[in-house]
Amino acid sequence: MIAINIEGKQLIAGRAVATGNHGDAGADRILGKPLPFKYYQATKGEIDEAVIAAKQSFPAFRSKSGKERADLLDEIATEITAIGDDLILLANLETALPEQRLMGERQRTLDQIKAFAGLLREGSWVNATIEHGDPDRTPLPKPDLRSMQTALGPVAVFGASNFPFAFSVAGGDTISALAAGCPVVFKAHPAHPGTCELVGKAIVEAVKKCNMPDGVFSMLHGDGPTVGAELVVHPGIKAVAFTGSYKAGRAIYNAAAARPEPIPVYAEMGSTNPVFVLPEAMKLKGESIARGFAAALTLGVGQFCTNPGLLVYHSDWAGWPFKEKLAEAISSSQGGTMLTEQIAGSYQAGIVSRGDTPGLETLAKGLPATNSAYQTPVLFHADANLLMQTPHLEEELFGPSAIAVAAKSREELLSLAENLSGHLTATVHGTDEDLAAYKDLLDVLVRKVGRLIINGFPTGVEVSHAMVHGGPFPATTDARSTSVGTAAIFRFTRPVCFQGMPQALLPDELKDNNPMGIWQTVNGKLTRSII
Amino acid sequence: MIAINIEGKQLIAGRAVATGNHGDAGADRILGKPLPFKYYQATKGEIDEAVIAAKQSFPAFRSKSGKERADLLDEIATEITAIGDDLILLANLETALPEQRLMGERQRTLDQIKAFAGLLREGSWVNATIEHGDPDRTPLPKPDLRSMQTALGPVAVFGASNFPFAFSVAGGDTISALAAGCPVVFKAHPAHPGTCELVGKAIVEAVKKCNMPDGVFSMLHGDGPTVGAELVVHPGIKAVAFTGSYKAGRAIYNAAAARPEPIPVYAEMGSTNPVFVLPEAMKLKGESIARGFAAALTLGVGQFCTNPGLLVYHSDWAGWPFKEKLAEAISSSQGGTMLTEQIAGSYQAGIVSRGDTPGLETLAKGLPATNSAYQTPVLFHADANLLMQTPHLEEELFGPSAIAVAAKSREELLSLAENLSGHLTATVHGTDEDLAAYKDLLDVLVRKVGRLIINGFPTGVEVSHAMVHGGPFPATTDARSTSVGTAAIFRFTRPVCFQGMPQALLPDELKDNNPMGIWQTVNGKLTRSII
Repeated sequence: MIAINIEGKQLIAGRAVATGNHGDAGADRILGKPLPFKYYQATKGEIDEAVIAAKQSFPAFRSKSGKERADLLDEIATEITAIGDDLILLANLETALPEQRLMGERQRTLDQIKAFAGLLREGSWVNATIEHGDPDRTPLPKPDLRSMQTALGPVAVFGASNFPFAFSVAGGDTISALAAGCPVVFKAHPAHPGTCELVGKAIVEAVKKCNMPDGVFSMLHGDGPTVGAELVVHPGIKAVAFTGSYKAGRAIYNAAAARPEPIPVYAEMGSTNPVFVLPEAMKLKGESIARGFAAALTLGVGQFCTNPGLLVYHSDWAGWPFKEKLAEAISSSQGGTMLTEQIAGSYQAGIVSRGDTPGLETLAKGLPATNSAYQTPVLFHADANLLMQTPHLEEELFGPSAIAVAAKSREELLSLAENLSGHLTATVHGTDEDLAAYKDLLDVLVRKVGRLIINGFPTGVEVSHAMVHGGPFPATTDARSTSVGTAAIFRFTRPVCFQGMPQALLPDELKDNNPMGIWQTVNGKLTRSII
Repeated sequence: MIAINIEGKQLIAGRAVATGNHGDAGADRILGKPLPFKYYQATKGEIDEAVIAAKQSFPAFRSKSGKERADLLDEIATEITAIGDDLILLANLETALPEQRLMGERQRTLDQIKAFAGLLREGSWVNATIEHGDPDRTPLPKPDLRSMQTALGPVAVFGASNFPFAFSVAGGDTISALAAGCPVVFKAHPAHPGTCELVGKAIVEAVKKCNMPDGVFSMLHGDGPTVGAELVVHPGIKAVAFTGSYKAGRAIYNAAAARPEPIPVYAEMGSTNPVFVLPEAMKLKGESIARGFAAALTLGVGQFCTNPGLLVYHSDWAGWPFKEKLAEAISSSQGGTMLTEQIAGSYQAGIVSRGDTPGLETLAKGLPATNSAYQTPVLFHADANLLMQTPHLEEELFGPSAIAVAAKSREELLSLAENLSGHLTATVHGTDEDLAAYKDLLDVLVRKVGRLIINGFPTGVEVSHAMVHGGPFPATTDARSTSVGTAAIFRFTRPVCFQGMPQALLPDELKDNNPMGIWQTVNGKLTRSII
């Protein structure tokens, strides 16, 4: 029995509001029954109110200094921490994700908030670029030009089902948008509305404590096709961030592109994250690769965007029974309860469809179900030809299922790689000799992905300045961006240039005396004055 | 009589090809008659051939070092220079732009090519970001992550009508795409096919001399709705750059967004570039502002994307007859022959439509026509209310026509600014006192434009690291970019991350020993090892 009071209302510019009908109840995934609260579906009027508030708060919010926005982020982290164990308890019930995992994810979320606060305090991220004028230049005087990144405007953020903290209310999308100076209207994921409310109220509290305009954060409940669709086409929204399915991501992209004023959509739609195993590595480390793959595939019931759903190996090297070892590793792996009934249903349907595909062998299944909600890992096996001729097999099946693919030759392995569409990641297992011999494979894969991993596994997306969690379509709708790591801030900015602006009116970032002590590119050279 | 031999064929991967029908003849705008050559409209097969060649050349081209690509750019500049005066002569006939202007534009184009070559030789533009791993970190080891910018793939570039060199075959779009490592399929503008051929052949020659894959550059003739549309939806094309009308730019954007794989479109669709005159400046420098405005408006028959088409002034200050002085300045201004008959026709139609708009006063016309092709500058006058209630008056009328707008109060001036849509630029004329008193106006305008100009005029787009030639929709389809200046290269790149990659296989830009001596962000700190 849960003692946490959940209102299920919209949080609009600091107030809890509910003028519409009840939506679904929150679900207890552990016991498989409704939780003792319902949330209200946001009405059209509430959506409008939230966006108008965001729009009205934008001029003031974008003009806040980086340090002031950093203070807001730090306060958000403080308020989330203050929720305490209730947050883990409720998220566990709503998502069926284990408490240990949720505690790790909460820490990761807090670390991420701190990383953006650090980026803002350091200040150089704005890419300050200064070109001094020359009034005596002939035939025309050279103007004084100074440019830097500035905020786009209000951002609609869609919470993901699979990360109730790190890709949800105070996740990377919200935090990078706020860091950039963009107000956020957040759509809570219906699978964990209670968790969303706790975190949403923490942000509202932080906004108040930091005296920020109250419209900088609102949170709406509701489903994608109604509330989400309305939000995306609202003229006050200037960018969208989303993590979820291809179908939903593409629908959002299409709606945004069809607006009278099209806006950027950063939809991270997951991918199959192919893993390649090269001959020498298979020979020397085949068993550990097989085990590592099974562990990465089944981690968290396979509910990661970077879950490795394809494993390609060179079957011509017959010295070691790689296929059998893979089957062994999967046979002893565990499944579990998935995030929602709908996700579990899609997984089951996908398994049935794969099972019915001619030429696709069911190689191994994980440990049998312990209860009716439990989903079992399944490894299929195909030859490279089947995969290349059946493009939909390359599509993600969200959950702990993968296809092992045998390539009969180096050439077949390379053409399979060349035939891949865009993915978030690709992984190659190889010794130094393997990698040198397969340099051309690496060159192909770099063109296909946002992140190329050598001798590792794609799950575990480090929050770092160098992370790229993105990749060519259909992994995302915008390969020019990352949704994890500090570079995610650039999704919500654009450059603006000041010509002939008096020093006193320039933003501090662009002043000659560099009062913030940031890196500036002055006349083509990076410099930083010491303060 | 022109002695230059123009074939009018497509240039596909180094060969001149023409399998289709003749298109229109090139037009002599000076004498108002056809030039003695025709061009061939590219066929569907030729378009496909050009894109396939681009696609096939991409893996080799993207792997060339920055220095090798810089050599290609330099050789392109050399070959263009080698064309000599024929280029100016033919461009003058095809566009009616004066020889002096064309010589300036050629120099600007060569300078721009050199600027990108310099960027590549310096090398730091790739934004090399390194985060060292930590195998001992708990609970999980920290991976070694390194990211940098990499090329998107083949780019379709549309030549503009109004800059036959700087926004055409070897203009900023083509050169920044090649600099990024992207092959280019260029669609020549039908208004100057001969000029395009001369420059196109110079690029082909440079590609050969530098031993680059021949598919890195192709040039196609034809109109937008047929050849252009086919090019945009070709699956081998991964980005589009365009400069031209809103109508054409939006059509390209829509087509690209509707592809099975949507791609970025950088359409620079021009804008009205509002100019604001504040009270003290009007008092002290009113006459020179009026003259400067008239000069900027009528320069090159007003055929610039940054042509100032709106002038907003505070009419409440009655100490000086600003409106009359403006009328005087326009009355003595010159028009001229426009780029094409179609452009001249649209200009005439726009003038008629403005003349018929109730409340819009025809304030002044320039010097009378000297021949039938001559278009005359026209200045209209409106009050702020009319402009705010008639949104289409804010739309660009390509040519030497503007609307002077009288705002009766500070508040009206501010709400007019707040009502503006996106523009490439905004300009404010003000004394230091004016600017301090109107700080809120500057804050509004920064949200509306790519470039804010103080006490200048928007025409004259400096090629510089700090330039932003872009802006919120409808000025462009992607406010996150600039099409002028070295930052234009980022339109054609995306970040890619290497995790756990052995040093020997990393790109030089990401190696620990920094063999290129570029700036790298290592563990969050910008450093550059001295070589």
